[in-house]
Amino acid sequence: MQTIKTVADLRHTLAQARRAGRRIGFVPTMGYLHDGHLELVAASRAQCEVTVVSIFVNPTQFGPNEDLSTYPRDFLRDEKLCRDAGVAILFAPDAQEVYPNQFETFIEPGELAKPLCGAFRPGHFRGVATVVCKLFNMVQPDVAFFGQKDFQQCAVVRRMAIDLSLPIEIITVPTVREPDGLAMSSRNRYLSDEERRRALAISRGLLAAADEFRSGERDVEKLVAVAKGHLGGVDRLQYLELVDGDTLTTAQSPLGRTAALCAAAYVGSTRLIDNVILALPTP
Amino acid sequence: MQTIKTVADLRHTLAQARRAGRRIGFVPTMGYLHDGHLELVAASRAQCEVTVVSIFVNPTQFGPNEDLSTYPRDFLRDEKLCRDAGVAILFAPDAQEVYPNQFETFIEPGELAKPLCGAFRPGHFRGVATVVCKLFNMVQPDVAFFGQKDFQQCAVVRRMAIDLSLPIEIITVPTVREPDGLAMSSRNRYLSDEERRRALAISRGLLAAADEFRSGERDVEKLVAVAKGHLGGVDRLQYLELVDGDTLTTAQSPLGRTAALCAAAYVGSTRLIDNVILALPTP
Repeated sequence: MQTIKTVADLRHTLAQARRAGRRIGFVPTMGYLHDGHLELVAASRAQCEVTVVSIFVNPTQFGPNEDLSTYPRDFLRDEKLCRDAGVAILFAPDAQEVYPNQFETFIEPGELAKPLCGAFRPGHFRGVATVVCKLFNMVQPDVAFFGQKDFQQCAVVRRMAIDLSLPIEIITVPTVREPDGLAMSSRNRYLSDEERRRALAISRGLLAAADEFRSGERDVEKLVAVAKGHLGGVDRLQYLELVDGDTLTTAQSPLGRTAALCAAAYVGSTRLIDNVILALPTP
Repeated sequence: MQTIKTVADLRHTLAQARRAGRRIGFVPTMGYLHDGHLELVAASRAQCEVTVVSIFVNPTQFGPNEDLSTYPRDFLRDEKLCRDAGVAILFAPDAQEVYPNQFETFIEPGELAKPLCGAFRPGHFRGVATVVCKLFNMVQPDVAFFGQKDFQQCAVVRRMAIDLSLPIEIITVPTVREPDGLAMSSRNRYLSDEERRRALAISRGLLAAADEFRSGERDVEKLVAVAKGHLGGVDRLQYLELVDGDTLTTAQSPLGRTAALCAAAYVGSTRLIDNVILALPTP
């Protein structure tokens, strides 16, 4: 595995792979890797000859009162995990390399960025779309892999790739969960033992609603109520919404299209998100 | 020369050139080609093995009261001009191909898009940046060529290419003028004979200021006054500004950096722009 810090080195190294016609897979991350990230790497390795992982804690997607400065970092551990997982190139630029002086051009996503997390994190998806576009242009992969846990991010990035005519396939990989159900997230490390137990309410609620859905329930209010019944343990529920899987607008009863039940909640001072996709059985 | 209408065909055709390691030059246009465009083609042919010209009258860069519907078009003539000029691929997508349903992601340029034309055409450079980014992602050229007549556009596109880490070199080609000095523009065809004579005031004013600059004048107000002295013939001067060549902020006296004297004016109902670059002699 090569660890690369600059765009020039990255382009030089990848040019050879590209000339040789190798399929390039890309997994953008903010580091502090967990099994969810490694699942993305595995998905890339299964269908690409060269897997590039980036680690970059992107300042433009954090709000002024968010956890940019405390976001967990452990580069040496991440590097070892990537090497062991068969990553070919680990790209870890610093902020100056990604956002040189005079930077002022942003990608502005549209309606998909407005509900859910977008309503609570103004500018977040603008920052996400911008850095993902930049990383795409640096790596120029054939395929890029994103975790379903960041459901709205997947929707925004997929829309961006289509809208900006990026020649890149976007693949969403199912959320990886701890044995007890908690969605894996680098932010889980913020949780105390007591908070960790209470955080479980989120996945319990979502998974219980998914069970009801699989049992045939198609009423939006009832499905949301099932999830909500579990959510007493969190400290502040930001949203719990059942949305259309494509447009992210509020789903209508009875569910007739694939939907996603999405939640964001604080447990202590840690903001956690999770979702389940309620896919209608194909007729 | 191949004329291509779809992104899929374009990518398929260019993939072969790219695999063969051929250098691809790109000239994006809105058609109704004139010698200015052909100069861009010549610049591309001089340094690239494959020259792609696009013709697309981009709706997102026109304001609601602008000339989208009347913008001059003559595809067969353009096609012949391209063929005769040695263009390899003429890409002429329709609006549905470029902006499919649900399109909602835009490139938002920053400060460079605000003065000059940006102040009079809100959203114009957002539309320009977005379509240029899309066309870049469709063609994936090594180099792209823009005319200096659209000076602010060149600045916005160059900034976008850097900010979004596009692996594309941006080259600005000097403005081509009619024998009497009028900057070539597709919109010149709107002018009546009488307006055509009066339109000459713009280039006369700018070129007179450039003469004064070459003679050593470095005072911003004096240079602007020289140009303004010629501009009585236009019907409505939108702006006449001497700006810093890099930042497009108002230039300071005495000029110590490369500047551009930029003008936009209506002659009859036709809006014309022009500029001259005042480059300091290298010491």
